[in-house]
Amino acid sequence: MLYLIGLGLGDAKDITVKGLEVVKRCNRVYLESYTSVLTVGKEALEEFYGRKLILADREEVEQNADNILKDADLSDVAFLVVGDPFGATTHSDLVLRAAKRGIPYRVIHNASIMNAVGCCGLQLYNFGETVSIVFWTDTWRPESFFDKVKKNRQNGMHTLCLLDIKVKEQSLENLIKGRKIFEPPRFMSVNQAAQQLLEIVQNQRIRGEEPGIEETLCVGLARVGAEDQKIAACTLQQMCTVDLGGPLHSLIITGGSMHPLEIEMLNQFSISEDTSESKSIDGL
Amino acid sequence: MLYLIGLGLGDAKDITVKGLEVVKRCNRVYLESYTSVLTVGKEALEEFYGRKLILADREEVEQNADNILKDADLSDVAFLVVGDPFGATTHSDLVLRAAKRGIPYRVIHNASIMNAVGCCGLQLYNFGETVSIVFWTDTWRPESFFDKVKKNRQNGMHTLCLLDIKVKEQSLENLIKGRKIFEPPRFMSVNQAAQQLLEIVQNQRIRGEEPGIEETLCVGLARVGAEDQKIAACTLQQMCTVDLGGPLHSLIITGGSMHPLEIEMLNQFSISEDTSESKSIDGL
Repeated sequence: MLYLIGLGLGDAKDITVKGLEVVKRCNRVYLESYTSVLTVGKEALEEFYGRKLILADREEVEQNADNILKDADLSDVAFLVVGDPFGATTHSDLVLRAAKRGIPYRVIHNASIMNAVGCCGLQLYNFGETVSIVFWTDTWRPESFFDKVKKNRQNGMHTLCLLDIKVKEQSLENLIKGRKIFEPPRFMSVNQAAQQLLEIVQNQRIRGEEPGIEETLCVGLARVGAEDQKIAACTLQQMCTVDLGGPLHSLIITGGSMHPLEIEMLNQFSISEDTSESKSIDGL
Repeated sequence: MLYLIGLGLGDAKDITVKGLEVVKRCNRVYLESYTSVLTVGKEALEEFYGRKLILADREEVEQNADNILKDADLSDVAFLVVGDPFGATTHSDLVLRAAKRGIPYRVIHNASIMNAVGCCGLQLYNFGETVSIVFWTDTWRPESFFDKVKKNRQNGMHTLCLLDIKVKEQSLENLIKGRKIFEPPRFMSVNQAAQQLLEIVQNQRIRGEEPGIEETLCVGLARVGAEDQKIAACTLQQMCTVDLGGPLHSLIITGGSMHPLEIEMLNQFSISEDTSESKSIDGL
C-alpha cells in the first residue's frame, strides 16, 4: 500500500495520530522536500517518528517515481507531504502511477495552507481561484496571474496568493555545465510579493489601465499553524515593509466587500496602529 | 487559553498529535456537534481521548458562549470541531468573544472538507466560490446558490457544494409549543442535491433560460478521509441514483475545462462502467 500522508503546517506534532501510526510501521518513508517546508527540519521529524526518512526532491518524484513505488504492492510505503497531499500541490502523478501498477493507495489528510488561511477570519467560502506568484528574473516577469486576481475581485472574491519556493535550484552556469551545485533555498516574502504586485499595477497604468489596488486591504500570513505564526492586515502598499519573519509566507488580496465578522476578525491583525494613520480596517 | 482544535474528517485517530496532547491536559473539552459529524460518535472519541466531552450544540455556542469561555483566562479549555475550526463553518464568533474578554486563543488546524476534496483529483486552485445546498421545504426553495455555480462555470471554475445537515431540529409544532423534542438528524445525500439542482434547471428552462448542466461532469464524495470513503464521477443526471452510502456527502460541479491530470484522476472514480453507457470521462 502506498500511503500519502499530510504533515500539516507547523512542526513534527502536527501529523495525525493515524498518520504517525502508519509512518512507524511502513517499510520505507519518503519526505517530499520541494513544494513546502515545516518550521522544523528532517532531523526533528526523524527524531519524533523514531525512524529514518528518505528525502524525495522534485527529480526523484517526477523522474524516479519507480524507486518510490518499488514493492509497494507487497509492503507499505509512506510518502510524506507538508500540508495535505492534495493541497496546494497535488501528487496526482504519483497516485496515477501507483494505480497503473495495481498498487493500492490511501490518503491521510491534514491541514494545508488552502484551508488553514481561514484562521485570519476571511471565510473560505469567499475565495476565488488561487494564484501563484513566482520569483521574477531579468528575463521572465509574468503578470498573467494578476488577471485572475482582478477577476476574483470583480466577483467580490478573495484571492489566496501562494508565494514561490526555490529549493535545490541550480544557477544557469551550473546547469549548463551539468554541475550538481545548488543555490541556497529561497522563499518569497509578502514584501517581495507586494512589490511585484505594485510593479504590475504601475505597468498596467502605463498601458492606460486602472487596476487601482494599492489601497486594497491585504492579509500577510507567515508560518501558519506554527507557534510563532504571524498575521498582518494592511494595504498592499504597507505590505511592502511589514516584517513577518521567516518562511513560509502567503498573501491574501481581499475581494472588496466583506462580511462584518470578517472585518472584525481582521481588525485583530491590523497593523495600522503601528503606523501614523491608526485607522480601523472598516475605513479601508 | 482557549484551544480550537480540528478533528479532521474520519475517526478518532484523525486528530493531530499536538491536538491530542492539548485535549488530554485541558480542564474542559467541548465538542461542537451541529455543523459536521465524524463517522464515529462522541463515545468513541471519549474512549480514545480518555476523557469526557461536553456536547456543544448551536444554542450553546451562539447563546451560552460564556459557559464555554468561563475561566479560560485562568485554565485551558478546548473546543473541538470536526474538520478545521476555520473550515466550512468558521468559529470567528467564539474567537472574537474570547479576544474581547482578554482570553488568548490558539488554533490547531486539521483537514477540512474544503481542502480534502482535492483527493478526487480536481485541483483546489481551480475551485471558485463554495456554495451550500439546503433542504427545501414546502415553502422555502432557494435557488440563488445556483447563480454562483453558473458564475464559477463561466469562469471555468469547479464548485464545491456543501450539503445540508439538520441536527437537533424541532418540528414546527414542537417549536411553537416550546417542546424540546427533536427530529432525527438528517444529512443531504448527493442524490437529493442532484435532484434539487435538476429541478432548478427545469425551473430556469421554464423561464426561458438555458442552464444546461444535466450532462456536466459532477463528483460525489462520501465520508472523505474515512476508511470507507466513496467517490463517484458522473453526470448530474446519473448522480440522482448513485448510492454512496451513509453521511456526510459533498458534491462538486466541475467547471467545464479540465487539466488532463484532473481527467485521469476522475477516471478512477467514473461510474460509467456500472451503466450501460461505459463511456470514459473524456467524452463528457
